[in-house]
Amino acid sequence: MAPAGPKKGILERLDAGEVVIGDGGFVFALEKRGYVKAGPWTPEAAAEHPEAVRQLHREFLRAGSNVMQTFTFYASDDKLENRGNTLRFTGQQINEAACDLAREVADEGDALVAGGVSQTPSYLSCKSEDEVKATFKKQIDVFINKNVDFLIAEYFEHVEEAEWAVQVLKTSEKPVAATLCIGPEGDLNGVSPGDCAVRLVKAGAQIVGVNCHFDPLTCVRTVKLMKEGVERAGLKAHYMVQPLAFHTPDCSCQGFIDLPEFPFGLEPRILTRWDMHSYAREAYNAGIHYIGGCCGFEPYHIRAVAEELAPERGFLPAASDKHGNWGAGLEMHTKPWVRARARRDYWEKLKPASGRPRCPSLSTPDSWGVTKGHTDLMQQKEATTKDQLKQLFQKAEANN
Amino acid sequence: MAPAGPKKGILERLDAGEVVIGDGGFVFALEKRGYVKAGPWTPEAAAEHPEAVRQLHREFLRAGSNVMQTFTFYASDDKLENRGNTLRFTGQQINEAACDLAREVADEGDALVAGGVSQTPSYLSCKSEDEVKATFKKQIDVFINKNVDFLIAEYFEHVEEAEWAVQVLKTSEKPVAATLCIGPEGDLNGVSPGDCAVRLVKAGAQIVGVNCHFDPLTCVRTVKLMKEGVERAGLKAHYMVQPLAFHTPDCSCQGFIDLPEFPFGLEPRILTRWDMHSYAREAYNAGIHYIGGCCGFEPYHIRAVAEELAPERGFLPAASDKHGNWGAGLEMHTKPWVRARARRDYWEKLKPASGRPRCPSLSTPDSWGVTKGHTDLMQQKEATTKDQLKQLFQKAEANN
Amino acid sequence: MAPAGPKKGILERLDAGEVVIGDGGFVFALEKRGYVKAGPWTPEAAAEHPEAVRQLHREFLRAGSNVMQTFTFYASDDKLENRGNTLRFTGQQINEAACDLAREVADEGDALVAGGVSQTPSYLSCKSEDEVKATFKKQIDVFINKNVDFLIAEYFEHVEEAEWAVQVLKTSEKPVAATLCIGPEGDLNGVSPGDCAVRLVKAGAQIVGVNCHFDPLTCVRTVKLMKEGVERAGLKAHYMVQPLAFHTPDCSCQGFIDLPEFPFGLEPRILTRWDMHSYAREAYNAGIHYIGGCCGFEPYHIRAVAEELAPERGFLPAASDKHGNWGAGLEMHTKPWVRARARRDYWEKLKPASGRPRCPSLSTPDSWGVTKGHTDLMQQKEATTKDQLKQLFQKAEANN
Amino acid sequence: MAPAGPKKGILERLDAGEVVIGDGGFVFALEKRGYVKAGPWTPEAAAEHPEAVRQLHREFLRAGSNVMQTFTFYASDDKLENRGNTLRFTGQQINEAACDLAREVADEGDALVAGGVSQTPSYLSCKSEDEVKATFKKQIDVFINKNVDFLIAEYFEHVEEAEWAVQVLKTSEKPVAATLCIGPEGDLNGVSPGDCAVRLVKAGAQIVGVNCHFDPLTCVRTVKLMKEGVERAGLKAHYMVQPLAFHTPDCSCQGFIDLPEFPFGLEPRILTRWDMHSYAREAYNAGIHYIGGCCGFEPYHIRAVAEELAPERGFLPAASDKHGNWGAGLEMHTKPWVRARARRDYWEKLKPASGRPRCPSLSTPDSWGVTKGHTDLMQQKEATTKDQLKQLFQKAEANN
Repeated sequence: MAPAGPKKGILERLDAGEVVIGDGGFVFALEKRGYVKAGPWTPEAAAEHPEAVRQLHREFLRAGSNVMQTFTFYASDDKLENRGNTLRFTGQQINEAACDLAREVADEGDALVAGGVSQTPSYLSCKSEDEVKATFKKQIDVFINKNVDFLIAEYFEHVEEAEWAVQVLKTSEKPVAATLCIGPEGDLNGVSPGDCAVRLVKAGAQIVGVNCHFDPLTCVRTVKLMKEGVERAGLKAHYMVQPLAFHTPDCSCQGFIDLPEFPFGLEPRILTRWDMHSYAREAYNAGIHYIGGCCGFEPYHIRAVAEELAPERGFLPAASDKHGNWGAGLEMHTKPWVRARARRDYWEKLKPASGRPRCPSLSTPDSWGVTKGHTDLMQQKEATTKDQLKQLFQKAEANN
Repeated sequence: MAPAGPKKGILERLDAGEVVIGDGGFVFALEKRGYVKAGPWTPEAAAEHPEAVRQLHREFLRAGSNVMQTFTFYASDDKLENRGNTLRFTGQQINEAACDLAREVADEGDALVAGGVSQTPSYLSCKSEDEVKATFKKQIDVFINKNVDFLIAEYFEHVEEAEWAVQVLKTSEKPVAATLCIGPEGDLNGVSPGDCAVRLVKAGAQIVGVNCHFDPLTCVRTVKLMKEGVERAGLKAHYMVQPLAFHTPDCSCQGFIDLPEFPFGLEPRILTRWDMHSYAREAYNAGIHYIGGCCGFEPYHIRAVAEELAPERGFLPAASDKHGNWGAGLEMHTKPWVRARARRDYWEKLKPASGRPRCPSLSTPDSWGVTKGHTDLMQQKEATTKDQLKQLFQKAEANN
Repeated sequence: MAPAGPKKGILERLDAGEVVIGDGGFVFALEKRGYVKAGPWTPEAAAEHPEAVRQLHREFLRAGSNVMQTFTFYASDDKLENRGNTLRFTGQQINEAACDLAREVADEGDALVAGGVSQTPSYLSCKSEDEVKATFKKQIDVFINKNVDFLIAEYFEHVEEAEWAVQVLKTSEKPVAATLCIGPEGDLNGVSPGDCAVRLVKAGAQIVGVNCHFDPLTCVRTVKLMKEGVERAGLKAHYMVQPLAFHTPDCSCQGFIDLPEFPFGLEPRILTRWDMHSYAREAYNAGIHYIGGCCGFEPYHIRAVAEELAPERGFLPAASDKHGNWGAGLEMHTKPWVRARARRDYWEKLKPASGRPRCPSLSTPDSWGVTKGHTDLMQQKEATTKDQLKQLFQKAEANN
Repeated sequence: MAPAGPKKGILERLDAGEVVIGDGGFVFALEKRGYVKAGPWTPEAAAEHPEAVRQLHREFLRAGSNVMQTFTFYASDDKLENRGNTLRFTGQQINEAACDLAREVADEGDALVAGGVSQTPSYLSCKSEDEVKATFKKQIDVFINKNVDFLIAEYFEHVEEAEWAVQVLKTSEKPVAATLCIGPEGDLNGVSPGDCAVRLVKAGAQIVGVNCHFDPLTCVRTVKLMKEGVERAGLKAHYMVQPLAFHTPDCSCQGFIDLPEFPFGLEPRILTRWDMHSYAREAYNAGIHYIGGCCGFEPYHIRAVAEELAPERGFLPAASDKHGNWGAGLEMHTKPWVRARARRDYWEKLKPASGRPRCPSLSTPDSWGVTKGHTDLMQQKEATTKDQLKQLFQKAEANN
């Protein structure tokens, strides 16, 4: 499967009009496998349990991913230190281990390695631009040293911090992608998706988009707004999208974090593989060519994206050896009436039942009612601008 | 974690009143990871992709499993041959590879290896008792040669075939467990759970119960009926349960196979970790001490079973290092109002929304309406006795 | 519409194999119209607001009812007295007014007048058989005096009290029908539907069945059990059913009273007219020929019953002048795409949405959790035998 | 209850800051009672069955209505003629009968009579302004002759036709109210609610608002937009709202007509009385003081509005004699655990279940998929501007 000769870079691929398939969400997938702790969400498993991280990379590669993102989400030193002295590894060790694993598996197929940084406690706790940039710099030094193929700044709630990250990433020669975890209403300071995108492109990002926090169709809608903004400004960019694999029609501006089911009761919201076909087609039709996933994505979700876009890409992923097109594998099922489900029409029309008749279809995003008794939460809920959040963050940190 | 000295056997543990935690469903978990094909559901991955199977064993071990079942579901020669010449490995190679992987990981902790057989096409297509037993014999020869710790006959829809399997398994000296994939209405010939259990115990099984096809609470109810039957007959046995991790209140006697969502639209039915706490407690209270999972179980589901029964077992599993009790890890979440969810009461009361307001809560098990156009399916649906199924199976096989 | 000559009696009709259509529930319909108070549920409106009661009778007559039941539910003196001195009319006045209204409207068409008695506080508070019978006697004296066509004892939770009522009703020469408000599990003392029916027939009832408390299909199932019991005993009877117009798949043995939505949140459970077609056909096919309704039934529900059974009856009801068959009236709708709904297939297949995505599909019948703080309710909930209820009733009455 | 002396007029009441409670929807209520045919929806019952119409007026009066609207919806001659020669009464007879009934009941209490006109086939089929106005003129002549207290132009999808109606109504000396059946997106030509309201005020309406087509909270939102528009334009008006009693979160710009449940499967969407409390409060807080209902409203819904606003109005309606505040009547229920529901907190928090686990929560507004086979419906669905609709209407009329 690995092509002869050096691989094409990320920009070469996108410039040539190729579809680039991203990978899925390591943090959630490894939480279910027992290697990441929900709450801190830190990636020490890269150093602690490399076999688990390597295996997940391999599954996404088989599923059709063209990008192995280093498992370095929340791996900035300031975030890791929040966990106190419970970790056996330094930030540098974790970042290095993550690079090695991504490279090892990328070289088993036609995938690139992307080094990733994400939002920092330093920014939220009101540190200076220099301090925040120094935090990013540490991770990027590792990425350059390990010679990743390109860089991604992802999961930023404030475009300002993402700009700073892009500026640091641009000190290297590598291509830079930047994705915010925002919805159609814009970032937490109310900057619109179009304006956010323009600022990121001006900061130097060649690829812009969103990741996490919202379901696929909401994310595609948001990236469309970004694209319109960039084009209105007379600029150029490539677009990417890496959404949740959860249905979240009921969430508000902070996304699935505010849903009462976050993070331990999201199961009934998980997308089926057929939902992923719609997502992939919708994203492609919107002119988004870098299409991947975030929290909730399992390898079979990425495979479904790759199967939907097989006509455009010209081939099926390796893992399709274990998957009939639109359920065709069921033709070999023991029960005759299950064989009758081996067709696209059946799965496209299915409205899957929850098996939970005592549960509702939608939730109300978290609010005071749920958390009554915690006397300062009301104001915290309403604090969505950076300054308000900074104050609350400091207060909360102080109390912890 | 591995104790000094030889491990206690399965019967020693159960006789001593210990809780034995099983593992989860390899077929479904590996289908999502890209290594098993839905439809045939065969386990060639044990030989083809040992690293993927090993990793899944390891995750269940970390989650608290005391048993590594060999990944030999549907690995009888007659089943594998149904797939034609698409497999690169012989049945013997697959069974041997599965034993080696289970042993390798079992020895990393306090787990036993169980060799498993399941129902065969030979029985359904009306082969003689001798022919069916010869099929089981081939797998068991491998298990004995590889010195597994005990044997499991699982996933039988007809108690008669399970009896035959138990009789073959008993030719070894190993302890024998037997589980049917039936609900409270009994096997496909209408033999009640109580009578099924009595027949299995008389055939020599020391542990009896059910696996697959129904959700946890339905399975616990069925095993209770088995226990009552065994006790009424003045016999003795240990009990085990390995249910689905899907809510299936709407399924009929053939279980989740008949639900229109099977197997590619079951996501909204997946149990949360908190549902698993209820299941584990309910099973334990019913006097069932071998508690595991089947299709849909992921490592975090087994961890939840182990966490619920930590008081009885006296310890938490390794993977609880990455999981706060009842969501306690959220105390370290960035957003203050998510921290407020770090408590048992919150998760116990949550009624998780599906995020799918255009989908129903329950389905109608598959029927003529869905499969209209397939002119002989009606009678197939109604054929639930063995003889009827045999005829239809032969007819269907002939047409394939 | 009124036939020439004297009307055929209820038994003549049923003996001749005719379908007899009952009326709907006055208590609930008049509560929504502002004339009955939920809680006491007494029928003083017959005397206070005769125009409202007359109008409702007329609507049911137009909808196809062959029976005008006197609006005398809970009109026994002991029940009316519970309300204290808030009523301006005596029990006799209310019962007389109800008879006059039913007769007036019955004579406008082909309907009979049925005088009705229902369960009494006297029985629940442990009065003697003589005292309870004396209570019934007072109402029956009015019915005889007003020359109703036949008598109905309805809404009894204990077959013993219903037997006593039948015995009193039989002191007249009138035909007697008797219906319990029970489900398939039997009366509150656990007497099975079959045994209940046998006892009522032996007490002299010529027509037996159930009314209220459960949805139509549950009620049909219960009457089927009654019919089997009567036939097993070598007896003969006619059968009647007057269910709720609410879907109640989730209720327990005391029926919809225990659902948390009772009585002010039942709206989402109201049956459509198309649900009523299924009900009427199901009841008819079960050999039940007296088919009516209870709480929740509005005139259009009864009309749907009459329309479904028009082939058997040979005619449509008067109100079908204002209703196209299976939605045919929509052919005259302004919007063309609404015209496309003017067909049976459309309405039979429709799965109507609730428009309430934050509500569940099923409830849990009322329990301690809901009523916490009311310290003696737990035992009250579990008191379902007559003796237990009597004690609690007395205690509660004392406290009121 | 009727006050001494002449009643205060509608403008005097609103100018004085009084709450004016409207009545509910006669068309839907009388359809269920058997007097109106769904599809044509015409009000011949006023002449054919006056007792039924009188009774419904009386129920709304008892429930708290201050306005008896003449039952003259769709009673323009052009609409009545569409029904062909099936009606025994002339348009003038129907309009006169409706006025007499409204006056008779209004004089039993403190209510005013409002003569109402609604949109006409003449407008949709492209007749001239003069022709359309002539149609309104005929009805208004009756209203003036019968000396109604004020006039309402209601249920207009195009503001232009409503303006014409207002202009004709203004030729009398009577106060004029005007309500469109639009949502927040505006009329069918895309005129915004604010602009619609300004045009209606400029045409001479003293009271403006919306009725029908959407659920209460959507209607309140729309009237708020109207109010903002009027105030922005420096104009003055009173505001009124008469929404559906159905939950319609899923409908598109044409409202509940497009929902697949319209009009015979809307039951699960019916609002509870407690939903009405929220509606009344929300409307009042938005500065809307004329608060009534349209399709789906039954007398108990209006009573709930009157009960919620009793503090503002200073009294309870007559029908509250038969209704305890927030369920207080349940204190007299036979079953002790039902008594525990006699409190506001219980009913406010209740999320009522549908009892329909096989139905979804939301629908998709009608589309081609549903009506496949009707080859010209697709274009009809997309025709929402007046000109498109006119063409299609003519075509459809021609085919009828």
